[in-house]
Amino acid sequence: MADIVRSVKGTRDFYPDEMAVRRWMFDIIRDVSTRFGYQEYDGPCLEFIDLYAAKSGEELVKEQAFVFSSPGDDMLTLRPELTPTLARMVAQRQYEIPLPLRWWSIGPFWRYENPQRGRTREFFQWNIDLVGTEAVAADAEIVAVAASFLKETGLSSEQVQIFVNNRRLMDDALSTIDIAKELRPDVFKVVDKLDKLSEKEWRAYALEIGLTEGQVDGLLNLVNDQDLWMKSDELVEFFKLIKIFGVEDYISYNPKVIRGLDYYTGTVFEAFELGGASRAILGGGRYDNLVSDVGGNRLPGVGFAMGDVVIELVLRDAGVIPEKLGHKPQILVTVFDETLLSESLKIAEEIRLAGYRAAVYPEADKLGKQFKYADKLDISVAVILGPDELKENLVAVKNLKTRDQVTIGRGELLSQIEKFLPSLP
Amino acid sequence: MADIVRSVKGTRDFYPDEMAVRRWMFDIIRDVSTRFGYQEYDGPCLEFIDLYAAKSGEELVKEQAFVFSSPGDDMLTLRPELTPTLARMVAQRQYEIPLPLRWWSIGPFWRYENPQRGRTREFFQWNIDLVGTEAVAADAEIVAVAASFLKETGLSSEQVQIFVNNRRLMDDALSTIDIAKELRPDVFKVVDKLDKLSEKEWRAYALEIGLTEGQVDGLLNLVNDQDLWMKSDELVEFFKLIKIFGVEDYISYNPKVIRGLDYYTGTVFEAFELGGASRAILGGGRYDNLVSDVGGNRLPGVGFAMGDVVIELVLRDAGVIPEKLGHKPQILVTVFDETLLSESLKIAEEIRLAGYRAAVYPEADKLGKQFKYADKLDISVAVILGPDELKENLVAVKNLKTRDQVTIGRGELLSQIEKFLPSLP
Repeated sequence: MADIVRSVKGTRDFYPDEMAVRRWMFDIIRDVSTRFGYQEYDGPCLEFIDLYAAKSGEELVKEQAFVFSSPGDDMLTLRPELTPTLARMVAQRQYEIPLPLRWWSIGPFWRYENPQRGRTREFFQWNIDLVGTEAVAADAEIVAVAASFLKETGLSSEQVQIFVNNRRLMDDALSTIDIAKELRPDVFKVVDKLDKLSEKEWRAYALEIGLTEGQVDGLLNLVNDQDLWMKSDELVEFFKLIKIFGVEDYISYNPKVIRGLDYYTGTVFEAFELGGASRAILGGGRYDNLVSDVGGNRLPGVGFAMGDVVIELVLRDAGVIPEKLGHKPQILVTVFDETLLSESLKIAEEIRLAGYRAAVYPEADKLGKQFKYADKLDISVAVILGPDELKENLVAVKNLKTRDQVTIGRGELLSQIEKFLPSLP
Repeated sequence: MADIVRSVKGTRDFYPDEMAVRRWMFDIIRDVSTRFGYQEYDGPCLEFIDLYAAKSGEELVKEQAFVFSSPGDDMLTLRPELTPTLARMVAQRQYEIPLPLRWWSIGPFWRYENPQRGRTREFFQWNIDLVGTEAVAADAEIVAVAASFLKETGLSSEQVQIFVNNRRLMDDALSTIDIAKELRPDVFKVVDKLDKLSEKEWRAYALEIGLTEGQVDGLLNLVNDQDLWMKSDELVEFFKLIKIFGVEDYISYNPKVIRGLDYYTGTVFEAFELGGASRAILGGGRYDNLVSDVGGNRLPGVGFAMGDVVIELVLRDAGVIPEKLGHKPQILVTVFDETLLSESLKIAEEIRLAGYRAAVYPEADKLGKQFKYADKLDISVAVILGPDELKENLVAVKNLKTRDQVTIGRGELLSQIEKFLPSLP
């Protein structure tokens, strides 16, 4: 046998069973997003590298993006994130798009990272943004969208939790322990590393950026103060409003959540798996100006992004992915012999017209072999039409799970299928 | 204003209105594919260039694929087509996958072509294959899937037509006019160019590959013989079976359809726009061995591919894209003043729970401004809750199309919305 060309490291093949899980997740995302009044959009997968230079900074572009020169010699990149594309698209039509805009998107992204469990080089990402308002209600809504998604997958609030904090609150708090304004962006990065480093490493890092021992102690007090949110009018309103969306138990205050990017200015949040590997599932926050690199009117907004890889692991580990995902045929129409092929095709067409997913065995073969094929595809119901049935306008229907078989009039076919089918999908 | 980084030539931005059309097409594709018992799959967008070398030949790889070296120095390509990925995936699990397999996929592809109307460098493609059978019923089913898609978009059989032919029939026919076996692959390419060149150019091309004047005349007779299909047992059976699927009027015999690729061995087909620009919409056929470059058991199959760019132009020109595509919010919940924000959020949540797409205006503002916003988003129904309504447990509902407004009890909100909403979506 010739060698099979291997697949590229960090990419994934989606065989039907894996694809069905992806589709199930995407359908929930679509359902939740549209129910909250968001409209789907998409940008190109290929963008000029310049688009990422301004906002993302050197690290992301140089180290993580797939950059290459096109046959026409322009430097292109496979998009590593969507926000710069969103900014470009909004800037292009800033005076036509009704504000506030609610947009969501899902599609492939690429980052040249070291592949590991929970991280691939080619992945999908859900992006959702509410742009053109500074209202705290917008922050609450976006967090409610995230929580509604988690809830609808079947994850409980004991399994996942969205931790919320506020950059402005932390900024004020840092001034109370006399940390200079210039140092605060670095201090945010230090706080962001709190759960990623050992205490010793973390303290060394904090001292290294220029904090005193006293400031480090003060900082530790701050990030362990679970009541700190009460000092923020925004967070007080946020936690009042968030009660309305029916997902309150998925959301809590956490002073350690700060998000690494300088981009965020107000509310910040991050969803984590509780227990297990404590994986970060999604993150986002309020930003001051979506189109800051472009000019035009200032456009504040709030949004988040969620990759598909970690959430799928969390869902698998939690055991909440349904066994039946509606991606397989429900009914196999068998072919008794060559002369009856047309009749079997007719029956399959009739079943499809009624809205069922029906596959027909494409040629005459032993019925046992056809049933075995149906079993392998986990098909529940087989339809059999032999010459005797045809003569008397009958048809046989077999429940492949119980092995029950009944012979009925052709007119009762659909109702018999309905009886044998497990509840949808 | 700073310059906006431009988008890459041959890529597309999908603003919500364009995205809704794409989503509408994809939903029909998904619906038709799954109803016929096909399962969705997907491969990576990034593949090694070697995967395409064997099958596609030099032209596609060197001239059309985006090829680049990854940071790790492997030569990668953005997939220009899906069949080699399908072959790889099937070969990897040839002895586990139940045969015949019915798989479909939709996703992005890239080809470095000269962008023009109907052709982009980044595009989406629907791929669907029935693999592991040589039955003519499989050919008929795949063509019926294509026709069912066209029919469900609203295109009529006067607007589009799938032309079917058979490679084996043409091979036999060529032998009747004494065209040597070695010459036949080139002759297939000549036939494929029939409608793409002027008669003079075409004749010159035919002579150039080594045909005599007599053979060229014979060839012209052949490709104008509308009854040629009757000499093919396969096509006779095909046209008998195709009547069963309820899409017969979309399908006809055409001896000029031959498909350029050497890959096809039996049934070949291509869908065209009738009139207008006569654009080619989709094409496919029967192949002898999906995994021929890999070895293992021979796997015959039949399938087709359809890009999203041409079909969208055809659908737009035919005027069959529905005006309402279900991508916009149906209801705007207004915010009367700051003290009533929570009440408005509660109402929005109640409406969403009933399954409607509801957006809430995120802050208090003049009602006129909020209605204007709803108009711009083409939202049909607004909900208004002022202090008087709140006191008496009432709510006002405004039909933004007719400007009718009624004040009703809170318990009647959903039924009133239902009355005002145009029929879904």
